[in-house]
Amino acid sequence: MALTANELAEFLGAKLMGDGSSIVSGVALPENAKAQDLVYVDSARYELRAEESSANCVLAPEGLPLKNKTILVVDNPKLAFAKASTRLLPTYLPTPGIHSSAIVASSARIMSSVFVGPFVVIEDEVEIGEGAVIEAFCFLGRGSSIGERCRLHPRVTLYAGAKLGSRVEVHSGTVIGSDGFGYVFGEGRHWKFPQIGTVEIGDDVEIGSNTTIDRGSLGVTRIEAGVKIDNLVQIAHNVSIGAHSIVASQTGISGSSSLAENVTLAGQVGIADHCKIEEGVLVGAQGGVPSGKTIRKGQTVWGTPARPLEKFKKQYAALASLPGLVGRIESLEKPKR
Amino acid sequence: MALTANELAEFLGAKLMGDGSSIVSGVALPENAKAQDLVYVDSARYELRAEESSANCVLAPEGLPLKNKTILVVDNPKLAFAKASTRLLPTYLPTPGIHSSAIVASSARIMSSVFVGPFVVIEDEVEIGEGAVIEAFCFLGRGSSIGERCRLHPRVTLYAGAKLGSRVEVHSGTVIGSDGFGYVFGEGRHWKFPQIGTVEIGDDVEIGSNTTIDRGSLGVTRIEAGVKIDNLVQIAHNVSIGAHSIVASQTGISGSSSLAENVTLAGQVGIADHCKIEEGVLVGAQGGVPSGKTIRKGQTVWGTPARPLEKFKKQYAALASLPGLVGRIESLEKPKR
Amino acid sequence: MALTANELAEFLGAKLMGDGSSIVSGVALPENAKAQDLVYVDSARYELRAEESSANCVLAPEGLPLKNKTILVVDNPKLAFAKASTRLLPTYLPTPGIHSSAIVASSARIMSSVFVGPFVVIEDEVEIGEGAVIEAFCFLGRGSSIGERCRLHPRVTLYAGAKLGSRVEVHSGTVIGSDGFGYVFGEGRHWKFPQIGTVEIGDDVEIGSNTTIDRGSLGVTRIEAGVKIDNLVQIAHNVSIGAHSIVASQTGISGSSSLAENVTLAGQVGIADHCKIEEGVLVGAQGGVPSGKTIRKGQTVWGTPARPLEKFKKQYAALASLPGLVGRIESLEKPKR
Repeated sequence: MALTANELAEFLGAKLMGDGSSIVSGVALPENAKAQDLVYVDSARYELRAEESSANCVLAPEGLPLKNKTILVVDNPKLAFAKASTRLLPTYLPTPGIHSSAIVASSARIMSSVFVGPFVVIEDEVEIGEGAVIEAFCFLGRGSSIGERCRLHPRVTLYAGAKLGSRVEVHSGTVIGSDGFGYVFGEGRHWKFPQIGTVEIGDDVEIGSNTTIDRGSLGVTRIEAGVKIDNLVQIAHNVSIGAHSIVASQTGISGSSSLAENVTLAGQVGIADHCKIEEGVLVGAQGGVPSGKTIRKGQTVWGTPARPLEKFKKQYAALASLPGLVGRIESLEKPKR
Repeated sequence: MALTANELAEFLGAKLMGDGSSIVSGVALPENAKAQDLVYVDSARYELRAEESSANCVLAPEGLPLKNKTILVVDNPKLAFAKASTRLLPTYLPTPGIHSSAIVASSARIMSSVFVGPFVVIEDEVEIGEGAVIEAFCFLGRGSSIGERCRLHPRVTLYAGAKLGSRVEVHSGTVIGSDGFGYVFGEGRHWKFPQIGTVEIGDDVEIGSNTTIDRGSLGVTRIEAGVKIDNLVQIAHNVSIGAHSIVASQTGISGSSSLAENVTLAGQVGIADHCKIEEGVLVGAQGGVPSGKTIRKGQTVWGTPARPLEKFKKQYAALASLPGLVGRIESLEKPKR
Repeated sequence: MALTANELAEFLGAKLMGDGSSIVSGVALPENAKAQDLVYVDSARYELRAEESSANCVLAPEGLPLKNKTILVVDNPKLAFAKASTRLLPTYLPTPGIHSSAIVASSARIMSSVFVGPFVVIEDEVEIGEGAVIEAFCFLGRGSSIGERCRLHPRVTLYAGAKLGSRVEVHSGTVIGSDGFGYVFGEGRHWKFPQIGTVEIGDDVEIGSNTTIDRGSLGVTRIEAGVKIDNLVQIAHNVSIGAHSIVASQTGISGSSSLAENVTLAGQVGIADHCKIEEGVLVGAQGGVPSGKTIRKGQTVWGTPARPLEKFKKQYAALASLPGLVGRIESLEKPKR
């Protein structure tokens, strides 16, 4: 997609400085950019990097006079860059149609604008909305449903009854709706607690590769609109995740825990069962929240068990001084002469 | 499956209070239940929740007089609920037969009661026992074997020679029998240590989604009967796991470590190589057991390196007071006037 | 493959003691070995184990006189054993050819010595070098390329444009080239930062099962030659990993971090974004390196945040004594009589 700098400025609400007829048709890092690629620079620190770039057009904050460039002045250049990318970058969309090798139940309801790739299996009563792309080796179990313009990359499994909203993107190898991990021990063995609930994914959710999201045991596992989930994440039965929350790679959320809106879990975080993570909380990487705990609105926590960041830092600094303290106490204990 | 309350009471060894002819045909949470769903209540705390439910029949402990309900009195209502579910819930069992798209080696021995789904690949000398269900995209490598009534959900990989007992359930995306991670460094590169052993999974094991279980290097990786393994778990070469142990999500067990019977590893636990985890041990979430360590029978441990829970708690509480201690030591060090 | 002890000694540069005409045709543990299996013994501690073995030939260090054995004396028996295995063990290589069920774009360039298994999907402009083995259910996206003698086990996904060098082995379920996890928050939602870069894997790399490696956002994710990556590892966008580094299971490396050569990350390690891990560093299991940190050449670090091992051990020992220190300070604070 090619736009003029003027058109792009209008789309972004940016102030234009320079040649409004410059053509922009891609995005790149300053050092790799060609003349028509859009680049961005966050701060004066990277001014030279932008000036030496071959790109004609640069997104920059106010007060950064770049020589020989057409500048689109915005408050948040990185944000504007991401927004511009949605216009400039081609989305690879295969031609709609069902590949001859796909196996599709006659009771499935699939819109004509849908692409179904090779070796896809679609079971009974599945529904797929307009413009969805279902790539090779996807398995859509009985009664699962997929909203408009969803994209399932190769090799996604939906267990029976899983529900995806619109514009959900799921990367390769991810499993949605498998049985939760719940057993009751008795008579010398583990009896499986019923895992017959459902899983519902809201609009505009993106889910990475090889992630696992279990169905509810008797209730629902629910991911609200706009949530972004990274690779290799585990989401257990009956978990709920509020809108626009972020869950980074290799994080695990145990059964029946809930995240409110705009929560951020960094990488390798563990949330034990029945926790309540309130709005806007940030849990630092590898942090662990023990069973049943609540983390209050807006807090930033770190460590295992997770505690407020300032407390963690103070304790950590004190720990570094601890070996020295032992000696100081010994000195104090010595009888004074 | 529909049963009368009388029949269910007999199956569970429960004492019946109320209408023994009530029909029960499903299970549910109290708030979602229909009249014929069985519900359970663990303690007096949830009495109201059960009473307000539409369910006719309730599993409850002794001494909980629920109004207008048929009560099945048991010691452990949750256990009885899980047991009842094995009778009441329909198991979706596809009609036996081999899907026309499956590719099956002529030397494979497959019982006639087996279901083989679309796009399954079954290599030479594979054996599959009575009543097994092998769903779409499963890959059964040369010489692998699967016992009676196993269920492989879509997209399970068995490397050559992997052996599963009876009634083993494996969820989507799991890989069993891949090469272990063993190298010897020399002459400036890593030489692969031979990974030519086997993997053996006992009866009644359940394994979650996207889990990985490596074959032995020269020996065997062994999972004993009744073990339950969650999603995204890593089990390395030559590991052994004793009967009825529980391994929660994202836990990793390194090469040649052994777990005895009835061990519980919570989520994101790490067991380094050559550890010995004795019977009944519980390792708390994110705990880490260093290379070569033994955790003695029945202990509960937490932290990295893992230590007895009471010790961990004491140290953790002391750590919280540590920043204050520094100030107290400084006061003591001040010359007294 | 069968060799005489003489031939093997020559291949390994070993000193032969005993019958040079002994035939060796496999490798095994001493206790499982048959007469023609090669075994190794590292130290005098395992002398008896080797002597009681049925194996005729033993790799051993200098000065270990094993009775009735043909001994191949080497400096590093385990290394020699791994090297010998590359000669002795048969590599299962399927007959070249493209399975009739595979779907291969006409623009793909595939050497005649390549094996393509059942249900493989190969998109436009893919290139596959001599002797490569692509097993069932692999998906090779547009323009991806695979060097000579690579082996992709069943169910590997390469996103469009992913590049693999020669002799790369990738285990089942691994995803290479999926979108990185990058968003910019604004106007109440997360905008996806463009994830249009590439991923390049060097020669002789081995990658375990169900691992995920994201493409660069605008740049490149790069894994250099000889790197070994275990199961369930996460490698984010724009990461670079230097030659011969080792990344153990369930470790995660966040965006734009770089590892130099010969780095070792143990299991469940977390490297946050924009870190620099210098040559020869070892990060202990479950260690965590915070955002933007550098770990200097040759250091061994442990803990979260990661610190030098000696410091970690001292702090940990001091922590164990901390509950006692509290009491000692209280004693000191008591007014002396």
